[in-house]
Amino acid sequence: MNGLQQWEAQSERTLTVAALAFLGALAVPIIWPAVGEPWVGVLAAVVVLTWLMFGVDYVIRLWLSEDRRGFFLHNLVDLAVLLLPMLQPLRLLRLVTLLSVLNRTGSSRLRGRVVTYAVGGTGLLTFCGALAITDAERGVDGATVTGFGSGLWWAITTLTTVGYGDTYPVTVTGRLVAAVLMVAGIALLGIVTATLASWLVERVSESAGAEQAATRSQVDALAAEVRGLRRELAARDGRTDDSGT
Amino acid sequence: MNGLQQWEAQSERTLTVAALAFLGALAVPIIWPAVGEPWVGVLAAVVVLTWLMFGVDYVIRLWLSEDRRGFFLHNLVDLAVLLLPMLQPLRLLRLVTLLSVLNRTGSSRLRGRVVTYAVGGTGLLTFCGALAITDAERGVDGATVTGFGSGLWWAITTLTTVGYGDTYPVTVTGRLVAAVLMVAGIALLGIVTATLASWLVERVSESAGAEQAATRSQVDALAAEVRGLRRELAARDGRTDDSGT
Amino acid sequence: MNGLQQWEAQSERTLTVAALAFLGALAVPIIWPAVGEPWVGVLAAVVVLTWLMFGVDYVIRLWLSEDRRGFFLHNLVDLAVLLLPMLQPLRLLRLVTLLSVLNRTGSSRLRGRVVTYAVGGTGLLTFCGALAITDAERGVDGATVTGFGSGLWWAITTLTTVGYGDTYPVTVTGRLVAAVLMVAGIALLGIVTATLASWLVERVSESAGAEQAATRSQVDALAAEVRGLRRELAARDGRTDDSGT
Amino acid sequence: MNGLQQWEAQSERTLTVAALAFLGALAVPIIWPAVGEPWVGVLAAVVVLTWLMFGVDYVIRLWLSEDRRGFFLHNLVDLAVLLLPMLQPLRLLRLVTLLSVLNRTGSSRLRGRVVTYAVGGTGLLTFCGALAITDAERGVDGATVTGFGSGLWWAITTLTTVGYGDTYPVTVTGRLVAAVLMVAGIALLGIVTATLASWLVERVSESAGAEQAATRSQVDALAAEVRGLRRELAARDGRTDDSGT
Repeated sequence: MNGLQQWEAQSERTLTVAALAFLGALAVPIIWPAVGEPWVGVLAAVVVLTWLMFGVDYVIRLWLSEDRRGFFLHNLVDLAVLLLPMLQPLRLLRLVTLLSVLNRTGSSRLRGRVVTYAVGGTGLLTFCGALAITDAERGVDGATVTGFGSGLWWAITTLTTVGYGDTYPVTVTGRLVAAVLMVAGIALLGIVTATLASWLVERVSESAGAEQAATRSQVDALAAEVRGLRRELAARDGRTDDSGT
Repeated sequence: MNGLQQWEAQSERTLTVAALAFLGALAVPIIWPAVGEPWVGVLAAVVVLTWLMFGVDYVIRLWLSEDRRGFFLHNLVDLAVLLLPMLQPLRLLRLVTLLSVLNRTGSSRLRGRVVTYAVGGTGLLTFCGALAITDAERGVDGATVTGFGSGLWWAITTLTTVGYGDTYPVTVTGRLVAAVLMVAGIALLGIVTATLASWLVERVSESAGAEQAATRSQVDALAAEVRGLRRELAARDGRTDDSGT
Repeated sequence: MNGLQQWEAQSERTLTVAALAFLGALAVPIIWPAVGEPWVGVLAAVVVLTWLMFGVDYVIRLWLSEDRRGFFLHNLVDLAVLLLPMLQPLRLLRLVTLLSVLNRTGSSRLRGRVVTYAVGGTGLLTFCGALAITDAERGVDGATVTGFGSGLWWAITTLTTVGYGDTYPVTVTGRLVAAVLMVAGIALLGIVTATLASWLVERVSESAGAEQAATRSQVDALAAEVRGLRRELAARDGRTDDSGT
Repeated sequence: MNGLQQWEAQSERTLTVAALAFLGALAVPIIWPAVGEPWVGVLAAVVVLTWLMFGVDYVIRLWLSEDRRGFFLHNLVDLAVLLLPMLQPLRLLRLVTLLSVLNRTGSSRLRGRVVTYAVGGTGLLTFCGALAITDAERGVDGATVTGFGSGLWWAITTLTTVGYGDTYPVTVTGRLVAAVLMVAGIALLGIVTATLASWLVERVSESAGAEQAATRSQVDALAAEVRGLRRELAARDGRTDDSGT
């Protein structure tokens, strides 16, 4: 375990807390626009502070890595998250991994992880999408999203691709947020279906009973059997030759 | 068969009837708001009565179970259904199982059960969603759901993620109901697709004919063949040694 | 080939033509409401006539079948099609089978049939849905579907679950048609995805090359090898015994 | 490598550039209607010129091909693209193939190609759909698509089947474009899901570890083992007979 891994192991908890604080500090003034001084200032400070933490963490990890160029190329996502603060909450996906404890066997573990990430990511996406749209649309003329409540409602109708049309973005920023949510919605649909399909395919092939495919271990055992046979013959070779003289 | 299983076997029919009565007693005043006294009172009584029955059933089962703590943990859903009366109709999913009679072979049985649950659950969900939305929206200013008819129409457009936008919830309760229906709609889409995919994958691999994967039974037979060969050699061993002297 | 099969073989072409005539006679007055006498009468006559033909065909088939009760139970769909004239066009799905010529290998044949049925069925459904909605909504107050053009547009937006909401049914009949189209839309989505998935799964396993699963023929060949070995040993057995004396 | 292949190898780069120029020349006046002379004329000239290039290319390829009739039948798509200029951008899908470099193993290569085509095709489709709808709807009474911006927004909401209904086509041309996008949207959903499903199915079967299906190479090795055994026995046959005399 080199220096980089040590640092990441030590800083993980702190950074997750920081990401939570960051998200909270962004969310509060959007959800309760009435929040007055000194809170606005405090929250702004929290945002800047946590943001700085992420920046410092990135620099330190870049510094500790043996192969800096490789690290840079393999962590473009981290860089993007750093430069596009709205992506910061993605760090919280790490929290999702805590849910993966429930999973047992190899196959169900993979599906379990996929599901937990899908569910956690969807929840996070809905919340952040609602924040972003509310921030972008509130107060704009002809906007149908007038607060966090309607923002959340819009995010849900969009992510599920229902799209009643009672709430929809009218600003360019809002429409960009919408595009992200729609694509995520399609991906969500895909993940749900794919997981179910994979589960069904597996269960069906299991319930096929005697028709199960021959396993490698099975054929390996058979091969061992044959090799054993060969050795025996080689051994007897010697003896029969003696008896021959 | 211990006491708990006996009780569940005996009470099942009664509880299913009670769930039907419960749903009916909830539905009638929502579908026909004009229904006057004494019916309103009677129906309310039915709701309370059946609800009590479910509570008593839960307590009895908790009492009869060997491991109470385990029972509690394994039946949190039942508890939720008990505390959130709107979930009561879920009990009716038991009726769906009656449809599973049609299914034969192992693989198709699994898919068959999945399909019957999906269809039954969808129907039940549409009906209950329509009840809930009608109850929540009717009489609200600016509501587009004005009766059970439009409620049912809204439930269908939502569950299929079409969402014309001619009817949509405006209250918080209504939007919560909508969120549930949308998620259910996505799950429904997933189940339909996954079942079709699993069916296709299976049929395709079957129709692949000579390309079918070697089965375990097949390889087992081969292994037996080889072991037989070994035994014969061992037997001849003895004889050839004699002939050698 | 018994009498029933003979009759079905002979009557197939006639009935397909009759179904086309039926659909045409239903469609014309809906698409061009301006069509005046004597055409209205003629078309109505065609509808009645073709309908009678289907009825006669059903009776004859029921008569020719060895096991009438079995025939009745196995042809409930035909009966439904007969009693619900709007379902008559389903007969045209038979035309789709003509497209299945393109398909070759076992696996792709199955998928090919699924795809051709899906495409043909979707086209037919869109057309009939547009007819039905136009017939149900035109002239109704507040209806957004005012002619066959907007009816067709509505059918497409519904079947694809897009649902802009610029056109939507307001009558009960129209909403029933809509429900059918929505469910069909979900099924369509499912079929498209499932076919793609099955194709991908198959191709992927093929392109896995050396990782391909052992085939039954392969293992059978190996078993033959081993049996041959056993026979040889049995043969040598004799000779070595002789040499031993 | 015959003349046809040589020509295609040589002309590919030129034609791709031409397709880009064609798309650009179509797009500019739609995106910036204010663009005045002489640019309108120049762009129109570019469109005609590039179009001619595609025509010449088609004729040359038809000329160079050994079997002209076969070439004609196998290149109906090219002919359609030639006659329906709006399809020209499809040629740009060739650019997508450049992205396929990332893919490694057989299985992931196939999926990788599917994904890259889906992503590239979707982007292209969105852009061209936005161009087409803007061209068709702008300036029409009651049109909700008033410029390229809202056209792009409409294309996204349609392709993802969200369909808020804040923007929708009102002209026949626009609705035809919409139908194409909707079908593409369904196909897109299908591809995303199918790819995920195929990936999951593969990964799950891999992670099943010891349960992996016996591979052909494995059984081939076993068969070699057995054949070797047979040869040895044949060899010993000779020797034991000598010792017998």
